[in-house]
Amino acid sequence: MNEILLMLPGPTTADPRVLQAMSKNVVNHRGDEFGKIYTETTELMSKTFQTQNDSYILTGSGTSAMEAALANLVNRGDKVLNIVGGKFGGRFVEIANVHGIESKTLDLEWGTAVSPDQVQEALDADEDIKAVTAVHNETSTGVAAPIDEIGEVMKNYDALYIVDTVSSLGGDYVDVDKFHIDACVTGSQKCLAAPPGLAAITFNDDAWAACEKVEANNYYLNMLKYRASGNKDPAQTPYTPSVSLIYALKAALEVIHEEGLENSVARHHQAAAASRDAVKALNLELFPDEAVSSATVTAVNIPEGATDNDIRGTMLNKYKVQLAGGQDHLKGNIIRIGHMGVINYQELAITFTALGLTLKGLGLVEDAGAGVAALADHYI
Amino acid sequence: MNEILLMLPGPTTADPRVLQAMSKNVVNHRGDEFGKIYTETTELMSKTFQTQNDSYILTGSGTSAMEAALANLVNRGDKVLNIVGGKFGGRFVEIANVHGIESKTLDLEWGTAVSPDQVQEALDADEDIKAVTAVHNETSTGVAAPIDEIGEVMKNYDALYIVDTVSSLGGDYVDVDKFHIDACVTGSQKCLAAPPGLAAITFNDDAWAACEKVEANNYYLNMLKYRASGNKDPAQTPYTPSVSLIYALKAALEVIHEEGLENSVARHHQAAAASRDAVKALNLELFPDEAVSSATVTAVNIPEGATDNDIRGTMLNKYKVQLAGGQDHLKGNIIRIGHMGVINYQELAITFTALGLTLKGLGLVEDAGAGVAALADHYI
Repeated sequence: MNEILLMLPGPTTADPRVLQAMSKNVVNHRGDEFGKIYTETTELMSKTFQTQNDSYILTGSGTSAMEAALANLVNRGDKVLNIVGGKFGGRFVEIANVHGIESKTLDLEWGTAVSPDQVQEALDADEDIKAVTAVHNETSTGVAAPIDEIGEVMKNYDALYIVDTVSSLGGDYVDVDKFHIDACVTGSQKCLAAPPGLAAITFNDDAWAACEKVEANNYYLNMLKYRASGNKDPAQTPYTPSVSLIYALKAALEVIHEEGLENSVARHHQAAAASRDAVKALNLELFPDEAVSSATVTAVNIPEGATDNDIRGTMLNKYKVQLAGGQDHLKGNIIRIGHMGVINYQELAITFTALGLTLKGLGLVEDAGAGVAALADHYI
Repeated sequence: MNEILLMLPGPTTADPRVLQAMSKNVVNHRGDEFGKIYTETTELMSKTFQTQNDSYILTGSGTSAMEAALANLVNRGDKVLNIVGGKFGGRFVEIANVHGIESKTLDLEWGTAVSPDQVQEALDADEDIKAVTAVHNETSTGVAAPIDEIGEVMKNYDALYIVDTVSSLGGDYVDVDKFHIDACVTGSQKCLAAPPGLAAITFNDDAWAACEKVEANNYYLNMLKYRASGNKDPAQTPYTPSVSLIYALKAALEVIHEEGLENSVARHHQAAAASRDAVKALNLELFPDEAVSSATVTAVNIPEGATDNDIRGTMLNKYKVQLAGGQDHLKGNIIRIGHMGVINYQELAITFTALGLTLKGLGLVEDAGAGVAALADHYI
């Protein structure tokens, strides 16, 4: 326990089995052995996305997959509706701008969630919208979007439904096929609990049909090449993949499916509910409405009389627990507790003990154990 | 020795210390600890590139860095001169096409090297050329380009000099500053002998000046963002990096600099010269002219009376040595022996014993030991 406990919205601590997987020697990425491992990994990804579609692994961060989805599916000059309630929603806008895609934004106050009605209104108001981007779990605000209900709207429109599940997949409910998602992306280092460095992406038939018509201006992130290489025998990637990390991702997905995807999601929801109760028991306020609060990251207002450094600095330096701060205009206003990946009551015990001691040290709570006591409702 | 010996032009077998480095837990990529590791790694990269410029690590394959270099330095509609003598030279043309950059090619017969005079003539013939791309070590043909002599030409022109050293850095002479290279890219999994999944890139001041003026249409591969993030304290990357692989790359670079960069290059040249002699002693012909033959991969014509599978299949299945085949129109015509990374006489002993036995089994040589005997000139 001498290492720093990462309670971040990614990267998360990997299972020792996952790190161990990377000690295997690198094999030829054009050979049968790798082809089998890659296929098994992409099949596990599709199982995790809950889709009948094929999945592909990109050597890159979650952002690379966000760009791959948007830039391969919408033509320069065409219009996309970007739902923006935080930093990652805004990233899709930046990606659209770079690619000459016209971005129309559905702007939300940070800390609130989009409603399906808002999406429907936006689509009804402009029939030129070719795609809608949604971020399932906005880690910058700790808000979860109702991607299932938005899907019920999207199924009635031709616009493609592109969903970023980078920080939710494995930790919150994601059912690509049932939610009518056309393109879904995720990253390796969040709830999947593999090291960072890989992203995964899946397109359905409608997305592929669009992709074939789009004049992409990406070379490395050209999805048609990923599909063509994935269909080769042995299966492969167009460019040299991160072989060691694919070993790790495969091991991490095996860990998830041994636990059971539903159990993993339930465990994340349990940790989120427990964290919210612990935070409130320590006299802190949640940043978002509790009803739309994320299953994988809890955002908390920094109380009056304390600074970001008072809390996060003490947590890190004295108690070896690393939390995340606010991003952009929320910097200094909120702290974010990530509870994703291999997370259970032990990590919460350490975190809320440390937070209780920190707040007590600042004279902001009476009972340093109140946070941990609130875990009782969830773990007894 | 039960594992397959990879004698490929990448990936190469990593030092156990390098694989071991990845067993360390992932740390927060926005924190001090990672900042220090990232800075040490980029400084080791600059030392390896032999440049005073800063270097950056991309989470992606070597191709991602090729795209990052070209697409960040040349505007849509502007003209680039691509030197094309093989598959990777051609890749720069494909990247140019995707980005709307006008590609003018200097086409070489595969297996031959470009001459500096040809580059000079091409530049004199068209003053609109904004950049020249060269592949130092064309793994598809086993040819090394005279990037030092081309640099002597380039220094007299405004056009930027972009060099791909993906499969040469650490194994052949690369001196970015001395060779007047403006932008240089490499990959982790070749002579640097780390696992695949990372690329490195360095720009000099002229390249940055161009970069600031180019309207890039890349989001993930936007180099200005890499520079801005690298300048933060702690140093970081714009998007989540492949933390575990950066541990590995740092360890791999430390291994190289403990040996000494010059010694590492000399060891590769020794292995290349020994391989060429061993091949000839086994009655095989080199594919390229010996004078321009690569320091890191030896390309050999498949002899009459044998197929690719007769040789490479037997080598792999019977003797557990994996060689590469030809690419594109050279498929079935050549085999390629990679000798990059952690390579010494032991690996050549196994490889040329296996090749000798294979050829003897095919009735193509009398003396199965002739290849190994030819190593004598280089390793006694």
